Amino acid sequence: MNYRLTAYILGQIAVITAAFMLVPFAMTFGYGEYEYNTPLAFGVTIGVLLLVGIPCVVLKPKDSSIRARGGFVIVALAWICMSVFGALPFRISGAIPNFIDCLFETVSGFTTTGSSIIPNVEIIPKSLLFWRSMTHWIGGMGVLVFVIAVLPKSNPAIVHLLKAEVPGPQFGKIVSKLRFTARILYGIYIVLTALEVVLLVIDKNVDLFDSFIHAFGTAGTGGFSNYVDSVGHFDSVYVDVVITVFMMIFSMNFNLFYFILIGHVREALRSEELHWMLSIFVGATLAITVCLLVNNVYATFGEALRYSAFQASTIMSTTGFATADFATWPAFAQFALVLLMFIGGSAGSTAGGLKVSRVIILFKNGIRNFKKACSPRSFNTVRLDGKPVSDELSHSVSSYFIVYITIFVASCLLVSVVEHATFDFTTHISAVASCLNNVGPGLGAVGPLYSYADYSIFSKIVLTVDMLLGRLEVVPLLLLFYPKVWSPAK
Amino acid sequence: MNYRLTAYILGQIAVITAAFMLVPFAMTFGYGEYEYNTPLAFGVTIGVLLLVGIPCVVLKPKDSSIRARGGFVIVALAWICMSVFGALPFRISGAIPNFIDCLFETVSGFTTTGSSIIPNVEIIPKSLLFWRSMTHWIGGMGVLVFVIAVLPKSNPAIVHLLKAEVPGPQFGKIVSKLRFTARILYGIYIVLTALEVVLLVIDKNVDLFDSFIHAFGTAGTGGFSNYVDSVGHFDSVYVDVVITVFMMIFSMNFNLFYFILIGHVREALRSEELHWMLSIFVGATLAITVCLLVNNVYATFGEALRYSAFQASTIMSTTGFATADFATWPAFAQFALVLLMFIGGSAGSTAGGLKVSRVIILFKNGIRNFKKACSPRSFNTVRLDGKPVSDELSHSVSSYFIVYITIFVASCLLVSVVEHATFDFTTHISAVASCLNNVGPGLGAVGPLYSYADYSIFSKIVLTVDMLLGRLEVVPLLLLFYPKVWSPAK
Repeated sequence: MNYRLTAYILGQIAVITAAFMLVPFAMTFGYGEYEYNTPLAFGVTIGVLLLVGIPCVVLKPKDSSIRARGGFVIVALAWICMSVFGALPFRISGAIPNFIDCLFETVSGFTTTGSSIIPNVEIIPKSLLFWRSMTHWIGGMGVLVFVIAVLPKSNPAIVHLLKAEVPGPQFGKIVSKLRFTARILYGIYIVLTALEVVLLVIDKNVDLFDSFIHAFGTAGTGGFSNYVDSVGHFDSVYVDVVITVFMMIFSMNFNLFYFILIGHVREALRSEELHWMLSIFVGATLAITVCLLVNNVYATFGEALRYSAFQASTIMSTTGFATADFATWPAFAQFALVLLMFIGGSAGSTAGGLKVSRVIILFKNGIRNFKKACSPRSFNTVRLDGKPVSDELSHSVSSYFIVYITIFVASCLLVSVVEHATFDFTTHISAVASCLNNVGPGLGAVGPLYSYADYSIFSKIVLTVDMLLGRLEVVPLLLLFYPKVWSPAK
Repeated sequence: MNYRLTAYILGQIAVITAAFMLVPFAMTFGYGEYEYNTPLAFGVTIGVLLLVGIPCVVLKPKDSSIRARGGFVIVALAWICMSVFGALPFRISGAIPNFIDCLFETVSGFTTTGSSIIPNVEIIPKSLLFWRSMTHWIGGMGVLVFVIAVLPKSNPAIVHLLKAEVPGPQFGKIVSKLRFTARILYGIYIVLTALEVVLLVIDKNVDLFDSFIHAFGTAGTGGFSNYVDSVGHFDSVYVDVVITVFMMIFSMNFNLFYFILIGHVREALRSEELHWMLSIFVGATLAITVCLLVNNVYATFGEALRYSAFQASTIMSTTGFATADFATWPAFAQFALVLLMFIGGSAGSTAGGLKVSRVIILFKNGIRNFKKACSPRSFNTVRLDGKPVSDELSHSVSSYFIVYITIFVASCLLVSVVEHATFDFTTHISAVASCLNNVGPGLGAVGPLYSYADYSIFSKIVLTVDMLLGRLEVVPLLLLFYPKVWSPAK
């Protein structure tokens, strides 16, 4: 473990977080929120961040080499520090009295989950709501990717940071020039977010603040809204369509946009993961539409399709906005949505879940193993995008799936330990599924119309850990508990 | 595919099924059930079985060699034929009017699931109830194991039949003399069942009929009872204890009893799977006891322990008797029970579920992979009973787990397609979990006090297939859909 380098990178993140926080800090004055203590809350937090961060950054480490393991631990620590400091404004302002609640909300923000412990979000000061949604945007693409993008000097060792922070089973092919890659990624991210802000504000019911909040929520596939009814508040087909489309865009692999940018449009459109993702989305939308029509939830096909497509998109992209209370939909629709939670978006996107490419590999591996069981001498290779998938990758995907399910089951058990009788089986399963897959709302008592406020402190801690496990894909956090990692000899 | 051999073996099974059916046939006269058509029902079925079976047996195949694949297909076909013929008495007697319901009940019997579509079992003729429970006993140890045990001549190829029918990741070490093994297995099975019959009938509330029904249900880890309240009907601590102990015994690997029989007691008690199974059972029992006490479901520790131990044992052994309505227990207890469903009993027992040894391998593999992720150059071998587990076995266990979960998820989706609103998420999940793991009752609308009667025909077919998939551990049934298997050149 290279402690000096770790401190240096964590320091940079503290400074960058402080820089991001300047925006809501300025808003506290713009909106004149003096009665809420928000100016003080942001001011103090920024002060603390700079006080801690600047000394770490000034003391540059001589040796800037890290191993894969070290990189993973830095990422885990960075996310934990970010969350603790990011939670301070909620606590200091008094908007959320309990610090565990503040932490839950902030981790939910950075991990782009969007689960909330605030029952009525409409009474929270605007600057805090803005910061809350900003955490989605920062966490979506990843704060370390940002550090790399803005760093003046590139370090070949930081590929390990990228690997740990960018979701999915493999980091794409454009890693050769790391800093360049990170800048391209953030460039695309900023342009797409800005485009959505503009498209949303065109609607007469959406003001600029709403537009930013929902664009941040979409871009990070987070899902925090400034309305209790989420996107349903606007009740606008136009807004629904814009957000549906952008949620799908932000759950595509960003490498595809890069390919399109450099003119390789055909290569981008040939992506197998993209085809699967869109097929699953269309299939799920149609199945749910039919289910809603047959069960008379909606009267017309158009209406059923509108709500089905939005909900399928918001769940599959793991955003977690809502335009309908899907917790009251028929069991089939609820099942389909929970399944979409686990599938999630593409690798290399801001979405959560297992990721479509992992699902493809699991599925193709299953077929291969079945063929092998039928005729042991047959030889089949699993291919993705026409290229053979190595046995090593196959096994690591299988292991990941098994660990993921184990965490899911263990969390369900833990979360149900201390809850009272009103929280049922469905509530617990969906709460864990939603947090682990970074979705946001669940079913039952944590449905889209409710919040996680009534969960016990113990369960909130479990769910907070689940959100981090889901976002960082397990390994970085588990490494924190591996003693050898902490030995000074890296 | 060796068609002549297949017909020969299926013929033998038809004749043996007819022989078993003579017992309830005789009972129809003993109980004077003339108004129910049961004498006719069993008589006709026995006639049909002999008419189909005898010609197949008489025409002995010249070539009696089979491949692994062929053996698996024979087992799958045998189970399907047995279920179809076994369902006839229910249909002909008119006790169950719909044939799909009859098939569901019979498959539930043979697969030792114990899920029932009969809302009030107490109005069903005794001979039919006896046959229903007998299917548990026949299916528990496996009908092909029985064929091998009673066959005069041993064929080395039939090891493939044993492999397909005896549950668990590997067939034990005592396969060298197959016929001998099969006889030993059935010998132990008969002695233990007889012992339980005697122990049960000692209780003054239990008559000989009750005693046979519940001993069959316990031995096969099936769970059919002749009372609506299941074992709860007797309300006797003695009966609860006897059945709890025997359920655990029948979910232990039968090889252990063989070892004890030949004097290797210490070796048997050293079994790692046994230690894990008992630890999980004790852990779950205590956790549920505490949960029941804290939530004031029972007033005293003794009472909570009694019901918790029985329910943990009935679910982990995948029997499915009940002495309490655990569908109304707190969410944590429900979770723990569903988890126990998936874990199941030991390999080489009559229990269902994933099997404890698979869970051990999955768990140890997870630990190994984590250690490997932490320090890539480390080398760890997964061991079971002190011996290294081959990579091949590890991978096949992982694949099995993934396929199992996939079947579970797909079945949940299918089962929820055509159901009305009264059947919720919990009902569907637990129904599929219970059928796939061969347990019996689920939660919600399929809890221990209810039946599967209200499920649609479509869902009943899905659940029937799930029961067979769970009992035969997937591969034999899937092979039926593999075209190459059907080519006459074996």
